[in-house]
Amino acid sequence: MPARRRRKGMALVAEPARTTTRLVTTRQRVVVVGGGFGGLEAVKALRRLPVDVTLIDRNNYHLFQPLTYQVSTAALSPDDIAEPLRAIFRGDRNVRVLMGEVDQLDLERRLVTLRPGIDGLEEETVPYDTLVVATGSSYSYFGHDEWRPLALEVKTLDSALRVRSRILAAFESAELAEDEDARSRWLTFMVVGAGPTGVEMAGQIAELARDTLPGDFRAIDPSAGRVLLVEAAGRILPAFPEALSERARRALDDLGVTSLAGHTVIDVDPQSVQVRRPDGESERIACRTVVWAAGVEASPLARVLAEASASEVDRAGRVTVEPDLTLPGRPEVLAIGDMARLRGGALPGLAPVARQQGRYAGRLIGDRLAKRPTPPFRYRDRGNLATIGRARAVADLHRLRLTGFPAWAIWLVVHLVYLVGFENRAVVLVRWAYNFFTHGRGGRLITHT
Amino acid sequence: MPARRRRKGMALVAEPARTTTRLVTTRQRVVVVGGGFGGLEAVKALRRLPVDVTLIDRNNYHLFQPLTYQVSTAALSPDDIAEPLRAIFRGDRNVRVLMGEVDQLDLERRLVTLRPGIDGLEEETVPYDTLVVATGSSYSYFGHDEWRPLALEVKTLDSALRVRSRILAAFESAELAEDEDARSRWLTFMVVGAGPTGVEMAGQIAELARDTLPGDFRAIDPSAGRVLLVEAAGRILPAFPEALSERARRALDDLGVTSLAGHTVIDVDPQSVQVRRPDGESERIACRTVVWAAGVEASPLARVLAEASASEVDRAGRVTVEPDLTLPGRPEVLAIGDMARLRGGALPGLAPVARQQGRYAGRLIGDRLAKRPTPPFRYRDRGNLATIGRARAVADLHRLRLTGFPAWAIWLVVHLVYLVGFENRAVVLVRWAYNFFTHGRGGRLITHT
Repeated sequence: MPARRRRKGMALVAEPARTTTRLVTTRQRVVVVGGGFGGLEAVKALRRLPVDVTLIDRNNYHLFQPLTYQVSTAALSPDDIAEPLRAIFRGDRNVRVLMGEVDQLDLERRLVTLRPGIDGLEEETVPYDTLVVATGSSYSYFGHDEWRPLALEVKTLDSALRVRSRILAAFESAELAEDEDARSRWLTFMVVGAGPTGVEMAGQIAELARDTLPGDFRAIDPSAGRVLLVEAAGRILPAFPEALSERARRALDDLGVTSLAGHTVIDVDPQSVQVRRPDGESERIACRTVVWAAGVEASPLARVLAEASASEVDRAGRVTVEPDLTLPGRPEVLAIGDMARLRGGALPGLAPVARQQGRYAGRLIGDRLAKRPTPPFRYRDRGNLATIGRARAVADLHRLRLTGFPAWAIWLVVHLVYLVGFENRAVVLVRWAYNFFTHGRGGRLITHT
Repeated sequence: MPARRRRKGMALVAEPARTTTRLVTTRQRVVVVGGGFGGLEAVKALRRLPVDVTLIDRNNYHLFQPLTYQVSTAALSPDDIAEPLRAIFRGDRNVRVLMGEVDQLDLERRLVTLRPGIDGLEEETVPYDTLVVATGSSYSYFGHDEWRPLALEVKTLDSALRVRSRILAAFESAELAEDEDARSRWLTFMVVGAGPTGVEMAGQIAELARDTLPGDFRAIDPSAGRVLLVEAAGRILPAFPEALSERARRALDDLGVTSLAGHTVIDVDPQSVQVRRPDGESERIACRTVVWAAGVEASPLARVLAEASASEVDRAGRVTVEPDLTLPGRPEVLAIGDMARLRGGALPGLAPVARQQGRYAGRLIGDRLAKRPTPPFRYRDRGNLATIGRARAVADLHRLRLTGFPAWAIWLVVHLVYLVGFENRAVVLVRWAYNFFTHGRGGRLITHT
């Protein structure tokens, strides 16, 4: 049976001519689902091994998610922070890339079902010997999914462009508004969740309003816009040391951002948001633009994996994995990144965790081929960065805590280094330099309303 | 009556605080509809005059249309070739920008009706003393509007991104195709219309397939893709001298583009295009991707203008204007650019014509204020450029005809100079340099399927 399965699912091998020949391969087939940080690093670790790798993603590109908020605030362009997966692996003949959704997994028969992302193409089943699932997470509305269509997110390129258009359109609407009330509603922006993304987003909206847009309008003063940053925890950036949280709060305050720590969102409608204040009283805040950057909800595949194995999901929907990132009782299936929870100690949902787990997955598969044991996964925490705006950031490097320009410089270098693609790096550097010196933001285009 | 109208429509004047005060102005109110090349130059000429200018566009940006085809072939990013209108005129306090559609004009009462581009905002009427209409043109399907949804266009940013996604998705589909027939259908691309845009588009698809994509796929060879360029006239680039047409044809041939001059499209369906060959026989060509770059159809406002004046429209729907670009019997209304036809001699639908007419409109209005006469509009034809691909172009500078690298260098400099915005120029230069040296195209993202 395994032999027959193997023959059915042999890798496609390219020939110089136009025809395709399906060859029988006896190499191990590894399927990686998800081309985010985890999946990308896994495939990079696997490409030098004698295995056939299939990387499946719903998009044809890897998105450098930590900078999507800059697309939503018109500082960067979608093309700058995404790189085609095929381009990344073009030189690796043992890696093939397929574009499609995966929502069915057959762990019994070791099959992944792929729904192609293009209309009119048929479903395809892809067999595996080893499966790495790295499909990430989305924001959580804490049981209030009815708020999802009212709020904006900076998760995908498409949603980031929608945020951009909505923020810019809010200023346009304010310019045309009939009365002071409507105008102030359009000029109030709320960001929910004060982790690094929320803090960065709030800072960028404030800079857009204060530094970029003044002069553009005739009836309104964009810098009179209000930016509110709502956080349920007692302080913003709760994962950072308290002193850095406070520095970040002050830096945001300088930019005109009001931090509302200890506030919980209890209702969202198209015209306002209701929050519960730390004193227990509730307050309704009139605002037309809400950006959601709170909570984490693992990809639905986490539950599929848990149900097909002896594992379980936690409150955030993450599947519990063994210390070697495999599913309990399914050593041939690994789950990594935001969608997985290490048995014995959850790790934060950060890019470095996903990247290190991706590399570990590749190493584990290589060790198994070489019949070497692999020590359990260990996360090497190199620190935490959050930027607030131009020359304003906080960096927690454990032994070293930085704020202001030095932290911002580190943030900048780290993001440029990790960004994929030479063209992307060069273009981002040009845009950042332009923005630094002129406060200009070339991407102020309303395209997704 | 005119005084009352004037009071109703006074300009909005900004104050440093949040409130808006509507002030009475006795300055002449000029409304410019359309922020393309014509409208932009008109406002630039008007901003130094003692008039109040309102610029209305359906988008919040000026699009540098001659490079949209590079967005559709992943060489440039949407943000690179568009500049916010508000940013262009931020320093000109007598210019206000409104975002919205105009489809009603009341020439009798001198009112423009604006439908805001943002949901939930109410219609607004904007009064004028002088009106400049510059709403351009779209492609013409020669009475076959049923082909429009089947074909792709590179006119707007949104349509350019759709072309990009569809071209890239065609390669993805070919990679997954079940049989040779389906594969070849996905790998055949047809461009209809061999003016500069069609030629540039065909050349870029060929370069994408031959130079950028090989190595990216495993089951197909992208360079085996076919690009067909269909032109009803007897040769491609019919507006160029015959020798340059022939040089362009040969350059396209080198890139693998098949030029089908003297061919007319007689039917389009989702799987194929039927053409009539020069010998009178018809042929059905299997192809899934058709890019339309043929014919010109003036903006519907041209007909509105003709019907409200003593003017008429020509076969392309353009309104006939006097030698000073005004409507017959309506000296306070000007129509410029692609949507207008000069009485006594039509001009080509090119950016330089629109730009010169925009400047002329500004000059005419200034002369009237100064009670100076203005000589009739005269087009200064500085020549014609078309690029075919990397270091391949043709330039007809009348006294000088260039091909190859020199023509391409001129094309490149001219486009960089006319592109609006310093950041755009810097980024486009980086992307072109990167593409020139590596054949890379960073924008290979499927985002609009």
